[in-house]
Amino acid sequence: MTEFGFTIHARDGAARLGTVKTPRGEIRTPAFMPVGTQGTVKALMPEAVKATGADIVLSNTYHLMLRPGAERIDRLGGLHRLMNWSGPILTDSGGFQVMSLAHLRKLSEEGVSFRSHIDGSAHLLTPEKSIEAQRLIGSDIVMVLDECTPYPATYDQAAISMALSMRWAKRSRIAHDNGPPRGALFGIVQGSVFADLRRQSAEQLIDIGFEGYAVGGLAVGEGQELMFEAIDASIPHLPDNRPRYAMGVGMPSDIIGAVMRGIDMFDCVLPTRSGRRAKAFTRQGTVNLRNAKHAEDLSPLDSACSCPACTSYSRAYIYHLIKAQEILGAVLVSLHNVQYYQDLMSGIRAAIAEGRLTQFAAEMLAALGKSAKEKLAAGAVD
Amino acid sequence: MTEFGFTIHARDGAARLGTVKTPRGEIRTPAFMPVGTQGTVKALMPEAVKATGADIVLSNTYHLMLRPGAERIDRLGGLHRLMNWSGPILTDSGGFQVMSLAHLRKLSEEGVSFRSHIDGSAHLLTPEKSIEAQRLIGSDIVMVLDECTPYPATYDQAAISMALSMRWAKRSRIAHDNGPPRGALFGIVQGSVFADLRRQSAEQLIDIGFEGYAVGGLAVGEGQELMFEAIDASIPHLPDNRPRYAMGVGMPSDIIGAVMRGIDMFDCVLPTRSGRRAKAFTRQGTVNLRNAKHAEDLSPLDSACSCPACTSYSRAYIYHLIKAQEILGAVLVSLHNVQYYQDLMSGIRAAIAEGRLTQFAAEMLAALGKSAKEKLAAGAVD
Repeated sequence: MTEFGFTIHARDGAARLGTVKTPRGEIRTPAFMPVGTQGTVKALMPEAVKATGADIVLSNTYHLMLRPGAERIDRLGGLHRLMNWSGPILTDSGGFQVMSLAHLRKLSEEGVSFRSHIDGSAHLLTPEKSIEAQRLIGSDIVMVLDECTPYPATYDQAAISMALSMRWAKRSRIAHDNGPPRGALFGIVQGSVFADLRRQSAEQLIDIGFEGYAVGGLAVGEGQELMFEAIDASIPHLPDNRPRYAMGVGMPSDIIGAVMRGIDMFDCVLPTRSGRRAKAFTRQGTVNLRNAKHAEDLSPLDSACSCPACTSYSRAYIYHLIKAQEILGAVLVSLHNVQYYQDLMSGIRAAIAEGRLTQFAAEMLAALGKSAKEKLAAGAVD
Repeated sequence: MTEFGFTIHARDGAARLGTVKTPRGEIRTPAFMPVGTQGTVKALMPEAVKATGADIVLSNTYHLMLRPGAERIDRLGGLHRLMNWSGPILTDSGGFQVMSLAHLRKLSEEGVSFRSHIDGSAHLLTPEKSIEAQRLIGSDIVMVLDECTPYPATYDQAAISMALSMRWAKRSRIAHDNGPPRGALFGIVQGSVFADLRRQSAEQLIDIGFEGYAVGGLAVGEGQELMFEAIDASIPHLPDNRPRYAMGVGMPSDIIGAVMRGIDMFDCVLPTRSGRRAKAFTRQGTVNLRNAKHAEDLSPLDSACSCPACTSYSRAYIYHLIKAQEILGAVLVSLHNVQYYQDLMSGIRAAIAEGRLTQFAAEMLAALGKSAKEKLAAGAVD
């Protein structure tokens, strides 16, 4: 917690331009965190990730605690050294992945017992164990263990789930504060799509007190409208002077809308996962590089992009690489997508600084939307 | 052919230190050419390949003519532009891959008819068509179509095969000279392990006249001793003032021995293929990164190597990446292996310049051999 801080430099409506300060470096907000699930932002060298403008990456405690193991990471000098990333790292609690194991896990007040997807070995994840694992990993921003309430949930289901998450949040805070000081701790607002549960959750977290607050349980199938409603129901009850993080969000339009509602931090596997699936994000919408129409297209993925994939390679080449199942195809599209997301965030930050976020958002969404409509009209499957 | 030349700067025994000059840049010899089978040195950005010290890459006409197609590559501005490699590119004739299709191909005086391994479509590859394809690709060093004589072969089989290759070499020369001037043309000595066939082949090629001469039919299962014998049988009959290229060679010890016999150029898929298979070449022998003994080893792949994989990452991390099936694992080991091969070549060049190649070779082979013996004694499967 030492040296962790958040400064707001400018506002535009509910949106904030800020800096999260950590001992390992500053994070310009609104920020997008590329996801390095297993201690690597998939297919990319960390220098390349850094060069896109990313100030922080996220890694997944569930994956790392199973392989190579949190204790092993600690013995090896921590994740930063291991993966050659000197900037801040945020780790999740491991809860989201464990909960998604379905029949392989069992929830109790104590925590969640589960079997590894790798070797079937039995494990118990508790709030305390998650904190310890994140500490061993060397996380700069530690997340409390919570239950990401499945969607849809009834009010009663959501209330019971949220209450458990709040008890775990309290235990996480205690465990974090009792250990050697390392990393900031973020609480997570739950409550599904129910506004008064979101409010109750936020208020209970504030009573505990965290260095930052996440809105959790988003991007789980509820759709953008309900996602924004859940954010709107949470934000007014969160302290202004702490960073706010929308976990697992999301598509470019999700991010723009969430920033306009007061969110400061994001993460999502989309840029890298799409990159490995030959889908590029561009200023004119998404492009499927498996489409044969790109076979002789000498234009770049996105003519407005300055990333190495766009400045040195054509769609025709990337189409060839993908058809030929060459690793470089996944590398180039992933690199571009991570750049696209960072460019989106720097565009958002510049717009907030200049008080023109509404205009920026309208232009971005129109460009993305127009393209989608045009494709629909043309019957094109891009 | 314009601007193509070869200069010898120093000699050490039969070994030569030289420069091959091409319109797209100079190649320091002895040279190792990383293989970019499908228009990409697998898993690596071309800037990274260049940074290892590689002056030239090789690409495979068989693969490129099927996908994306030689005509398409021409329409897209040539392979250099497509793959973002501005230095020289050597292309093989396509023959080696076609011959290895076994029951999918049929040999005749005219050429070889075959079915694509991708879609089963029927094709005919002739000396003239190979030259045309390599011209369309934009090759700087074009290889004649030949039959890579299978090993083992009887004397009669080898003689018949070599004679066909020589007739094809003549047709290749004529086709190359009749087209618009582009690229140097190399002939290929065949004759299997039979010294007088190798001599006859070399003499017939010299009668035709080429900008460089390859020794073909090597590294096809004959073993290092017979490989060296085949080289020894060819070299004395080749002109001193032309570069000599041992196709598909090879292991580090193969390269050292071949340089000492007068070979100037090499190519092999080993550094990249091994890279994708978690096998690293090091100054102490090969290392299998799947071996659990590396799980907590903070040392680099090769402590004497200056490549990014060695300066920024530990064996422990690379072991983790490989166990987790992360693309970056293949990237890092491939990058290191390509660097290892380039370091080997620069070490060889420095040794020739200083007249201490014999000593260099003895030290290198001792280090590689000693390591292998130690492992054997320890019963270790590395």
